[in-house]
Amino acid sequence: MSDAGAYRPSIAVAMLAGLDHAAFGPHHWDRLDAIGHVLDRAPLTDLDDDRSRAVLAEAEVLLGHWGCPALSADVLAHAPRLRLFAYGAGTVKWQVTDALWERGIVVTSAAPANAVPVAEYTVAMILLTNKGALLFRERLRDPDAVVPLVPSRVGNVAKTVGIVGASFVGRTVIELLAPYDLHVALYDPFVDGPTADALGVELIGDLNELCARSDVLSIHAPDVEATRGMIGATQLALLRDGATLINTARPALIDQDALISELQNGRIAAILDVTTPEPLPSDSPLLGLANAFVTPHIAGSMGTELGRMADLAIDEIERFARGEPQRYEVRRADLDRIA
Amino acid sequence: MSDAGAYRPSIAVAMLAGLDHAAFGPHHWDRLDAIGHVLDRAPLTDLDDDRSRAVLAEAEVLLGHWGCPALSADVLAHAPRLRLFAYGAGTVKWQVTDALWERGIVVTSAAPANAVPVAEYTVAMILLTNKGALLFRERLRDPDAVVPLVPSRVGNVAKTVGIVGASFVGRTVIELLAPYDLHVALYDPFVDGPTADALGVELIGDLNELCARSDVLSIHAPDVEATRGMIGATQLALLRDGATLINTARPALIDQDALISELQNGRIAAILDVTTPEPLPSDSPLLGLANAFVTPHIAGSMGTELGRMADLAIDEIERFARGEPQRYEVRRADLDRIA
Repeated sequence: MSDAGAYRPSIAVAMLAGLDHAAFGPHHWDRLDAIGHVLDRAPLTDLDDDRSRAVLAEAEVLLGHWGCPALSADVLAHAPRLRLFAYGAGTVKWQVTDALWERGIVVTSAAPANAVPVAEYTVAMILLTNKGALLFRERLRDPDAVVPLVPSRVGNVAKTVGIVGASFVGRTVIELLAPYDLHVALYDPFVDGPTADALGVELIGDLNELCARSDVLSIHAPDVEATRGMIGATQLALLRDGATLINTARPALIDQDALISELQNGRIAAILDVTTPEPLPSDSPLLGLANAFVTPHIAGSMGTELGRMADLAIDEIERFARGEPQRYEVRRADLDRIA
Repeated sequence: MSDAGAYRPSIAVAMLAGLDHAAFGPHHWDRLDAIGHVLDRAPLTDLDDDRSRAVLAEAEVLLGHWGCPALSADVLAHAPRLRLFAYGAGTVKWQVTDALWERGIVVTSAAPANAVPVAEYTVAMILLTNKGALLFRERLRDPDAVVPLVPSRVGNVAKTVGIVGASFVGRTVIELLAPYDLHVALYDPFVDGPTADALGVELIGDLNELCARSDVLSIHAPDVEATRGMIGATQLALLRDGATLINTARPALIDQDALISELQNGRIAAILDVTTPEPLPSDSPLLGLANAFVTPHIAGSMGTELGRMADLAIDEIERFARGEPQRYEVRRADLDRIA
């Protein structure tokens, strides 16, 4: 079946010890075997021990996952043939280094695949919060619960969903909302009018205006200097009575103390998959409030969803072996705009 | 604008007192005025007082909603010109009578529009329960909570959603699940292979097999003699460890005592929008269990969603005025198959 003359790269794999059984199925190893030569089926967990150095000496491709160490100058000095770092999970920031960029090693990430479950979680929460479902349940369990339900505003019709950030997650949320009778508005300083039109959303140039107009505000921005604390007391006060804030992105984007105050007065609701700290201490007010729905950073890929990220990374390695460009290359200049 | 020669039916409106402000907006009255002659803008709430009789004497169309009384032989005796009963909500069973069918009055219902929010609620719950989100939250609030989370099985990939009943709701759930990486299987004794193929689902002829294969089992069957108690102790025992049962249909379809036992042993989870009784008493075990998520019969149209049902009913009246067939006619023989 294989083309005898085809380029078959040498492939190293690195991740947290024990993760490989969850991250890859037999199908993924079969795919890697079809593309190239897997140097060691037991993934590297450290990149500077003797075994790692022997593997890195040969590796042209490094397939990384959670727990893959940073590709420091020292590590790279022992990986003279390395040309592609294919990361099989979301955020690649902890692995990439100046030395990696300076060597011109191509970097790709499975962030678009990791965006899918985050977007699915978000869409499900948008539908339920527009419906008041989470709050109706709290009130059924405790008739005295303070829940910001506005009966005439319950429902998934004639509502505005405000999306902060057309990241991979933000864009996937927008796509998945298409079948519903919801108005979607976007704030993203990097998106222009034609792009917003193509996405089918209303572009709003001012974050405060988006806050004031949204029934649900969902945050999908990266955690970079410009975005930290972007949802503060001012933005929270602009949200309508009964509005819901959803954060599946990064905790630093929101002023959590200001949010707790706003939740304690019962005017809005929040759905938070990310918090400071994680996990929350058991006495955190966020865990006791009926209008706060907190999950322990689970929106990203878990369990059966890990295989989708592995497939994306292997697709990229396949492209590399064929001499095709990467579909989801990450460049140094992207780092201040991506998660 | 109007065609001088067009047929303009006389239209009566009947519903619960005070409901009209929630059920119809100005846009709906404008549409009715464009189609025909609204006999009294204040909806009838009773059908046998003097005002009602004066209105019914003229009415060719009756637009009904929640709380519209049954169209008994006595009521119909005072409505000699009535030819269409357009019901602007879901279940029309409480209004239709033998006398209505015998008069040959055409009946139509907005059940397909009411199916939309029920399906949206269901899809959101399927995505969240596959993700374990509801149970992770319970465990974050109470580390001792008994929650049937199977970490390797968490996620919205490689999961089977079992749908019981290709009703309007069941079909809308199937359509809305199309963008997701979920396998959808259907049990419905009235659906044949080609129809299942067109729906894009696997047809399973045996309910017990569907129970055994489903990660999420969602009930969308009508409450008729053949379906009462269809999900009993046997079916619940067949569900996989960590599976979730969703019921947004009718409480009688499930043996609730058997379900409570199964939930108390912590093996499965349930999401129930309908229960016996409604609302549940505050000491119901269903309200205390971490693996039971109960809402107070809210999945159907509420708040901003009511207008969609009104629009469907008015579309039907428009078709009637034009001499076109109804799109969603309800026939007497349908009653043992619909909700």
